[in-house]
Amino acid sequence: MVVYSKGFLVWFTGLSGAGKSTLASSLHRCLHERVLRSELLDGDEVRSNLSKGLTFSKEDRDINIRRIGFVARLLARNGVAVIVAAISPYADVRDEVRKQTQAEEVPFIEAYVDCPIDVLVKRDVKGLYKRALSGEISDFTGINAPYEPPDNPEIHIHTDQESSDISLSIILEYLESNELIKNIEK
Amino acid sequence: MVVYSKGFLVWFTGLSGAGKSTLASSLHRCLHERVLRSELLDGDEVRSNLSKGLTFSKEDRDINIRRIGFVARLLARNGVAVIVAAISPYADVRDEVRKQTQAEEVPFIEAYVDCPIDVLVKRDVKGLYKRALSGEISDFTGINAPYEPPDNPEIHIHTDQESSDISLSIILEYLESNELIKNIEK
Repeated sequence: MVVYSKGFLVWFTGLSGAGKSTLASSLHRCLHERVLRSELLDGDEVRSNLSKGLTFSKEDRDINIRRIGFVARLLARNGVAVIVAAISPYADVRDEVRKQTQAEEVPFIEAYVDCPIDVLVKRDVKGLYKRALSGEISDFTGINAPYEPPDNPEIHIHTDQESSDISLSIILEYLESNELIKNIEK
Repeated sequence: MVVYSKGFLVWFTGLSGAGKSTLASSLHRCLHERVLRSELLDGDEVRSNLSKGLTFSKEDRDINIRRIGFVARLLARNGVAVIVAAISPYADVRDEVRKQTQAEEVPFIEAYVDCPIDVLVKRDVKGLYKRALSGEISDFTGINAPYEPPDNPEIHIHTDQESSDISLSIILEYLESNELIKNIEK
């Protein structure tokens, strides 16, 4: 049986379509099956609850990320294993959230979901890259808005090279080896 | 020793200056001393974190209250004793939050902090009523914006008649008698 003893925050960052939400859901299900308390804050869903009306300008994106960070910290400092999946393209705001989280003695685990842009454009599951490339969507991360990859993420996932099972096991191993979740004999 | 077994949400509503924040802080301190997990979401503080830029129109106030409700539910369903202090003048949105909270099997305790407007105008600790009455502040609840008192709140506090110790003990007794916090022999 796996249990966790204190709250923590796993923050998935990466381009649209790289696999953040899928991986976050798998991790959430996995933690949920094995531990008491876990919450998934998915960027799109949280946006409708916390940030309706905000645009995709840098300023508004930063506000959105700060709000997600605020809620995530409140949960994590109360012992919840919090998972965030949000493009969160700007390094400075991610680092701001990291510092605020660590200041409350909550472990912050940045998980970079990495996939080359040409692979994403080719996949284009939602057809968003096509619309961004044609100029129909503006401020689209990776096409006409910047993405600043983490310099030194705790976890680096390559969804173009690994199966989702492998990616998930890399994350679980990180959490176990850092004693955020534990293997306990029944 | 007093402990609580599951999360719940105490929602303080009432006019500006009625004593919501003071009472909420006392309750928070009191729960914090005796239980593991409690969070206070104070309207003014939460506004700066979640709702910067929103006005005091009905529409924007409703959005603000929904956001507070969203965060409060996330916390409470994870076993946190959540205290909200917010004017929350509109009955329909308070009831919406109540229903959503109860739908997650989280107890919702509406605590009406009641004080007659003439007493508040006389007290006017922050000088806000004077400014609202002169027209300097618009959309000020109780003066030039409505306050809809709860029809049937779980707790009804009268801060013009009771000392703050009495008000606090009324709340603690409610929580104890509803087994949200328990007296446990050491």
